[in-house]
Amino acid sequence: MRAAILVEDLFDERELIYPFYRLKEMGFRVDLVGPEAKTYRSKLGLEVKADVSAEPELAEAYDVIWIPGGYAPDRLRRSKKIVEMVRRAVERGKIVAAVCHAPWVLISAGVVKGRRVTGFHSIWDDLRNAGANLVEEEATVDGNIITGTGPDAMPEMMRLLIELMGSSSIPK
Amino acid sequence: MRAAILVEDLFDERELIYPFYRLKEMGFRVDLVGPEAKTYRSKLGLEVKADVSAEPELAEAYDVIWIPGGYAPDRLRRSKKIVEMVRRAVERGKIVAAVCHAPWVLISAGVVKGRRVTGFHSIWDDLRNAGANLVEEEATVDGNIITGTGPDAMPEMMRLLIELMGSSSIPK
Repeated sequence: MRAAILVEDLFDERELIYPFYRLKEMGFRVDLVGPEAKTYRSKLGLEVKADVSAEPELAEAYDVIWIPGGYAPDRLRRSKKIVEMVRRAVERGKIVAAVCHAPWVLISAGVVKGRRVTGFHSIWDDLRNAGANLVEEEATVDGNIITGTGPDAMPEMMRLLIELMGSSSIPK
Repeated sequence: MRAAILVEDLFDERELIYPFYRLKEMGFRVDLVGPEAKTYRSKLGLEVKADVSAEPELAEAYDVIWIPGGYAPDRLRRSKKIVEMVRRAVERGKIVAAVCHAPWVLISAGVVKGRRVTGFHSIWDDLRNAGANLVEEEATVDGNIITGTGPDAMPEMMRLLIELMGSSSIPK
């Protein structure tokens, strides 16, 4: 099982750290994937090294893509490679989880139209304008897309992710 | 199920964030417990508010006590109430997990003598001098005490914790 966590400067520490260790606990090999394979810094200055530089074809390599929030999503959506990788992952039925401001990346990937999604409340207008079926819930799932409003939504997002894994073809 | 995560200034962000959300995911009510009920700052300046001020009797209230590392353990061990709370928790068979530099608190609580423990390598001499049966493993368990060398040990520590929960009397 392989998971990618997308990383750019100004990511929210909590929204990267919890899934990073949690997915490893489940037995995933976890790669940090950025627009470039270099060091990025969180909002508070936590440095992490992206192992892998994003490529659209990498959508095939990962069973799960987790997108942390903070202001990293505003930077991630500027990368055509990141955006195309996320679009393909959604299209191919991979599990894609976006927390807090990260649904911005889903908007740019063009995958939220008509789908039940949530996100941090400041981006609800963006989600509605993108044609999403916005739900004011802490965490929600629609098909293979999991979204959540912020750090406190993550435990529920993780439960949804595990449920999806159970019903998907990810090898255990 | 109730869990306490001990907090003081200069805690390692990763070592508090992962168990905080992970234990919530399991259904625990998680309290941050400090020498005082006030705001503490991580090594990088992440602010968290301790909900609860430590008291020795609180050892009874919690099924699990998790102690993050960083330099917070050097500060936690200065608090008689914290140290006594940890000592009683170990004595009463509660699950106590300490990662990285956090076994310093176990040393001050007088609970490592003759027990299999690990920790960050810089404190191995302290653990040996305290009479611990130091094991150079990433994560280890002895009875109800779980220890680990650092952040990367946490997924394995969590697996050990879940195993212990399965064999203990914590209500599910």
